[in-house]
Amino acid sequence: MTRANLDVLIPWPDLAVRHGSWPDGLGVHVWDAVTPDSEPDQEVLDRIGLWVMPYGVGGAERLLERLPALRAVQSLSAGVESLEPLLPAGVRLCNGRGLHDASTAELALGLILAAQRELPHWAAEQAAGRWAPHRTRSLADSRVAVIGYGSIGSALATRLRACEAEVVPVASRARPDEGVYAVSDLTALLPDIDVAVLVLPENAATVGLFGAKQLAALPDDALVVNVGRGRTLDTDALLAEVATGRLRAALDVTDPEPLPAGHPLYTAPGVFITPHVGGGSAAFRPRAERLIVAQVRRWAAGEELLNPFPRG
Amino acid sequence: MTRANLDVLIPWPDLAVRHGSWPDGLGVHVWDAVTPDSEPDQEVLDRIGLWVMPYGVGGAERLLERLPALRAVQSLSAGVESLEPLLPAGVRLCNGRGLHDASTAELALGLILAAQRELPHWAAEQAAGRWAPHRTRSLADSRVAVIGYGSIGSALATRLRACEAEVVPVASRARPDEGVYAVSDLTALLPDIDVAVLVLPENAATVGLFGAKQLAALPDDALVVNVGRGRTLDTDALLAEVATGRLRAALDVTDPEPLPAGHPLYTAPGVFITPHVGGGSAAFRPRAERLIVAQVRRWAAGEELLNPFPRG
Repeated sequence: MTRANLDVLIPWPDLAVRHGSWPDGLGVHVWDAVTPDSEPDQEVLDRIGLWVMPYGVGGAERLLERLPALRAVQSLSAGVESLEPLLPAGVRLCNGRGLHDASTAELALGLILAAQRELPHWAAEQAAGRWAPHRTRSLADSRVAVIGYGSIGSALATRLRACEAEVVPVASRARPDEGVYAVSDLTALLPDIDVAVLVLPENAATVGLFGAKQLAALPDDALVVNVGRGRTLDTDALLAEVATGRLRAALDVTDPEPLPAGHPLYTAPGVFITPHVGGGSAAFRPRAERLIVAQVRRWAAGEELLNPFPRG
Repeated sequence: MTRANLDVLIPWPDLAVRHGSWPDGLGVHVWDAVTPDSEPDQEVLDRIGLWVMPYGVGGAERLLERLPALRAVQSLSAGVESLEPLLPAGVRLCNGRGLHDASTAELALGLILAAQRELPHWAAEQAAGRWAPHRTRSLADSRVAVIGYGSIGSALATRLRACEAEVVPVASRARPDEGVYAVSDLTALLPDIDVAVLVLPENAATVGLFGAKQLAALPDDALVVNVGRGRTLDTDALLAEVATGRLRAALDVTDPEPLPAGHPLYTAPGVFITPHVGGGSAAFRPRAERLIVAQVRRWAAGEELLNPFPRG
């Protein structure tokens, strides 16, 4: 079988309705990984060449064993490090770069505003029926390090600058003409930072990147935010710093994840936790649909796919 | 006594330290309205010509009876409607226009993000030690009406556009070349609005401006935000809409205010309340200090004061 006559498997049925029609002659099948007994028959799976994986559904990877003709996988996640080793050699992998920028950046902004303006405290006050205002910190005038300066980090920087914050971008390598610092400069930069936001993927260079040394370099009362991957931040070192009240944190990703019931992070002082919902908002779907439609057209036309992720 | 030899009363002692020195020969006194027994002696009060009132301190107005030489009052609030009638005839009034833009706009943004991304829900989940993510609404792609398009509304619009929201500005009069609609267009605009933000001062034209008719014109699941003045939004009409789950709300100001214990708004479904803390953040102080220093210099030089508020 050549790529030309291999079918496509997508997670949502109504894409073509909203975005025009599918290319002539292309077989397009649907599996959402959620509806019970919805897996296509093996005779359909035998013909799938491009699989757009369901997003945010644990265990969807099980289908890989039943896709003998698979040539390419489109993940809707920005981070595909844990998926990559599961794919057979020769299968191309495309990631969801860009799909989560707006959603994740706005959650990061929401976490920062929640922490600086004490929104969880006011929610508790409301639940207690109390009206007792006090002054809070602000985001305006804060110096915010955005550590991991890819497309999500850059989308966050745009939002932060609109809020009159000063952005200090940090990437793996310095890009002096864009004002981007290198991660090797981090401990020198941190003493002047009010808010440190981690937007890092998980790989050998980033696991544990923000540990006791980096936390110690932050000034008193600084806020640590993580919307990237949980393992890039040392949980035990963070717990030690927040236990004394010296630092605060707002985390959408954690290590371990999911955070088990009874884990000390849930009750640590000055820590606000959301359960990895950065990418999981209404902003994701229209952007994901536009990418899927573009990829299916490229697939049918025999063109290069967008967002290729290098395989080892 | 002429203005030239009248003294100034300010709420914070260390302004001159941070911003240079006071003009030569000018008497500058301090009263914070909070420290017990800190009121200046009557012989000092007899010489006060310009009073910069303490901010956010109830009852400071009591000093007005003891300021016989008063010529001008600088309020640090943006809204001075309730202060104005208390001032003797002939006393000039200057307001805090601009001081609260960054602080109030960022709280409004925080309230919108909290509502769209369900931050109060995640705070409650954290308190229960639960990790149970689900998809949420987003701010990106939303159509947000900013009703009351002065300096705070404009600062909010900048932040919303950076979040990939579409802004529909509404002011008392249309300004077609700036894309600003008139408040008379409101009910025609509202059916296409996802988030309606009230940033209105309180006056005869705005009290009750957003009532049952305007709320009914909003589509299902729309969010109503108020960071202006509580009485511009009809509390009973809002309670009726949120009780059915048709609309949601996030309120930094309420009617009545402060909201008394046991008021149904505290427990209304889909309503998030903060206790009038829009202007009360760290962003306020440096901006207020810059205004006070500028006004004191103008006072000493006999120049026109900034931010005059018209008196009837």
